[in-house]
Amino acid sequence: MAVTRRSFMKGLGVTGGAGLMYGAMSTIGLAPATASAPAFRAPARSDLIGRVDGHHSVVVLGGGPAGLCAAYELGKAGYDVTVLEARRRPGGRVWSVRAGTEETDLNGEKQVCTFADGHYFNLGATRIPQSHVTMDYCRELGVELQAFGNQNANTFVHYSSDTALSDRSITYRAAKADTYGYMSELLQKAASRGALDDVLTQADKDALSEFLSDFGDLSGDGRYVGSTRRGYTSEPGAGLDFGTHEPPFAMTDVIRGGIGRNFSFDFGYDQAMMMFTPVGGMDRIYYAFEDRIGTDRIEYGSEVTALQNTTEGVRVEYTRDGAPRVVDADFAICTIPPHLVTRLNHNLPADVVHALGAAEPSSSGKLGIEYTRRWWELEDRIYGGASNTDKDISQIMFPYDHYNSDRGVVVGYYSSGKRHLGFESLTHKQRLAKAIAEGAEIHGDKYTRDIASSFSGSWRRTRYSESAWASWQGAGGSHGGEATPEYTLLLDPVQNVYFAGDHLSNAIAWQHGAFTSARAVVTSLHERVAAS
Amino acid sequence: MAVTRRSFMKGLGVTGGAGLMYGAMSTIGLAPATASAPAFRAPARSDLIGRVDGHHSVVVLGGGPAGLCAAYELGKAGYDVTVLEARRRPGGRVWSVRAGTEETDLNGEKQVCTFADGHYFNLGATRIPQSHVTMDYCRELGVELQAFGNQNANTFVHYSSDTALSDRSITYRAAKADTYGYMSELLQKAASRGALDDVLTQADKDALSEFLSDFGDLSGDGRYVGSTRRGYTSEPGAGLDFGTHEPPFAMTDVIRGGIGRNFSFDFGYDQAMMMFTPVGGMDRIYYAFEDRIGTDRIEYGSEVTALQNTTEGVRVEYTRDGAPRVVDADFAICTIPPHLVTRLNHNLPADVVHALGAAEPSSSGKLGIEYTRRWWELEDRIYGGASNTDKDISQIMFPYDHYNSDRGVVVGYYSSGKRHLGFESLTHKQRLAKAIAEGAEIHGDKYTRDIASSFSGSWRRTRYSESAWASWQGAGGSHGGEATPEYTLLLDPVQNVYFAGDHLSNAIAWQHGAFTSARAVVTSLHERVAAS
Repeated sequence: MAVTRRSFMKGLGVTGGAGLMYGAMSTIGLAPATASAPAFRAPARSDLIGRVDGHHSVVVLGGGPAGLCAAYELGKAGYDVTVLEARRRPGGRVWSVRAGTEETDLNGEKQVCTFADGHYFNLGATRIPQSHVTMDYCRELGVELQAFGNQNANTFVHYSSDTALSDRSITYRAAKADTYGYMSELLQKAASRGALDDVLTQADKDALSEFLSDFGDLSGDGRYVGSTRRGYTSEPGAGLDFGTHEPPFAMTDVIRGGIGRNFSFDFGYDQAMMMFTPVGGMDRIYYAFEDRIGTDRIEYGSEVTALQNTTEGVRVEYTRDGAPRVVDADFAICTIPPHLVTRLNHNLPADVVHALGAAEPSSSGKLGIEYTRRWWELEDRIYGGASNTDKDISQIMFPYDHYNSDRGVVVGYYSSGKRHLGFESLTHKQRLAKAIAEGAEIHGDKYTRDIASSFSGSWRRTRYSESAWASWQGAGGSHGGEATPEYTLLLDPVQNVYFAGDHLSNAIAWQHGAFTSARAVVTSLHERVAAS
Repeated sequence: MAVTRRSFMKGLGVTGGAGLMYGAMSTIGLAPATASAPAFRAPARSDLIGRVDGHHSVVVLGGGPAGLCAAYELGKAGYDVTVLEARRRPGGRVWSVRAGTEETDLNGEKQVCTFADGHYFNLGATRIPQSHVTMDYCRELGVELQAFGNQNANTFVHYSSDTALSDRSITYRAAKADTYGYMSELLQKAASRGALDDVLTQADKDALSEFLSDFGDLSGDGRYVGSTRRGYTSEPGAGLDFGTHEPPFAMTDVIRGGIGRNFSFDFGYDQAMMMFTPVGGMDRIYYAFEDRIGTDRIEYGSEVTALQNTTEGVRVEYTRDGAPRVVDADFAICTIPPHLVTRLNHNLPADVVHALGAAEPSSSGKLGIEYTRRWWELEDRIYGGASNTDKDISQIMFPYDHYNSDRGVVVGYYSSGKRHLGFESLTHKQRLAKAIAEGAEIHGDKYTRDIASSFSGSWRRTRYSESAWASWQGAGGSHGGEATPEYTLLLDPVQNVYFAGDHLSNAIAWQHGAFTSARAVVTSLHERVAAS
């Protein structure tokens, strides 16, 4: 009975509503792409007309990215869709915190956000790579995009080490110039000594030398002696004002100080610039979904208590504003975090329950600090991007909006795993104090001043999520690419219940993962209906 | 008599209108900055009251960045300023081309731009580094900023070589992953062989190995065998869709193919991300200056014909809308391109004439192509940034605005020097044909389709500029930092005539250079008046 979502839509005779084509990247000059997945085709009414009974109902548990995407796509084919969402807003772990945002966390503490109008921070998902299907939904839904600063030469690295660079704030600009400079000098030296003659021809060596000279900004004799790429302590100006700059750090300090440990962050296929984010908050995507789906189909304040397969379909029990309710439908798409599904009154088989439990919750969270003076621009010449540190705060993210205005929201920490555990159980005031203390060590005393308000969230202590993202047992903490037995089991429906969410994708913690999972489930469900 | 503009404003007793403070970059944890230049202080009325006669007149030749900045800053102290600008618009070589832009070039060809409303490209200056004073003027003038894509992992490199990678379009993403991978493997190999033991301790080697493993995405045994950083031919999705990707290129091809030749571009202190540009066109800055200065003080359509020092001050002759006019003033600030000043009827001394002639004009230009389909987003997943090539077009720049909309303006070439000379004498139609032919080799046949309109400009063939930027004889084509005798001579006023412009700065071809030059002249002139 189980219909695998990996099957294609062949034979469906789709004639209308082709929907999104998720094209592979162009590979001109490269070997032809061998796409592993067929392009997604949105369900269409024409797929069903004259083939099957017209009316099919689907109850979607959860109004986050997976749930709203599924409801939206099924709606294109006329399915009778109901979305049950416990929160009073769409988006789930996509959560843009702004004036009026209220939340009582599982520590029992209530926060109310008082940021000035137009200011916000994304407590959950905050950036979109160019290749993700999220970009296509922004296009389809008319959500305006702006560039997201995922790299900034003027932000700082700040790490502890047993070198002279320990606990010093160094611009990425200087850290990169010195690292690349010494790296190039060393490789150039080794190659010219013949140490790599077994793997490099003379032609290779000549070309490598030319490259390294430019890459490392080496002197004529192949040495790194500093570079204007490090930046200036005083910018060059007019006339004879040539600016001033510092000499490079010592090679051993650069290497042993580990100041290049975070360079690879933005080499990642899902973190490399250019990166994007919706104007006004990531949640704009979900309000756009809500608009297309229709608010009459989304029941906010609905907390699911039971999920049962029945002989006819599914039965879902929930409370809406405290009152018990029941909905019967042909199918359910469950996007509730897997470790919370097992708390429902359900009749899922034991292996499925075991599989759901293998998706372990992870710890992560952010704290937003509203400053009434954009000191990072005025004093540090930082417009967006993040400083990186081995302190618990992990990073300080600067706003990518309201440039040059009179205030802004800085993300005082975005930390995960062990480094976030220390924040989870703190009160908001304690979190703020710790964030400011660590931040001031990096950006100075100005970090402690001109603070108007703040707001924090810790996903394991946030009701209805209780996890930042799923970490599959046996997958080594990867964000996808590991088909553990439990993960694989949940890809198939359990009678009339389908599971969807980024945790069932190879882009865990990304909206792309939630969308592709939702699309896979929608395709599978629609194929099943069309063939019935 | 000559007052050097390098002198400080000490003793001026400035008490009001402190104006912009151009702060040095924060250097927490670094040695204290030794600023080479004092912070700029805008002239203020209070500097003059009770000290000197209140009325001083300045005629500014040229309404580009230097001229408008000078007029604006002098206006703060109540100087009677007149700006003479030959064009019908402010900005000079800052030129945003949009619907209605008309230009007849020195080849005699007239172009009229027909881009759709809201679309444009900057034919001149197009980007601003965070450290440049241009950012401060945007703040002071209320010019809205947006991020400029100066780096994009999804754009292409495309070069000729004698390798298998010749004339192939390769994403920066793949080029960087392979280059960094092999570079790391080679250095790791050399270090582990002991080839660098004279310069690396064991602790250095251990730390280097850890860094290289991450930097190059090496395998456990120190080899580069490919990386997801290269990107996917099919993006990973849900379930068991792990995506598909290509193996790395061969090491010798990566090295000898020179695919990393442009990586250092965005390591530069003035090109490293984040970079910015005003919303709606770089000329927004100059319309903002115009608004502050007052249109009554800017005479457009005024072509200067004579510049003379007189015993009382200066006399400037010009034609306005064809009619001859004369203006007398206490001082002149001449921002006319140096090689054009010598064409005026002037009484400048011979050494100054010689010095002006040492600023040689350079060749550069751009061509904008309006497409009615954003194929670069839809097919190549490119949102901003530029492809780079060794063809004459040099680069293809993608728009950083109107993301995901139905049309956009691509800069089909931005080339300089020898590679631009071939475009200069062509008709616009010929330029377009050449740009499309070369662009199609990089981005495919789609480059030739869906073209609505286009516009091009070549600065040596553009009236009133006749140069993209100045190249000082003996300075080796650098953009500053070379105090040639001629350059140095022009830093001092010639009696009552001051020269200003980016050519008299260490940021040639940057607005920052024009602004700092204007500020230096304003400071010098104001100090002279206050002391008189």
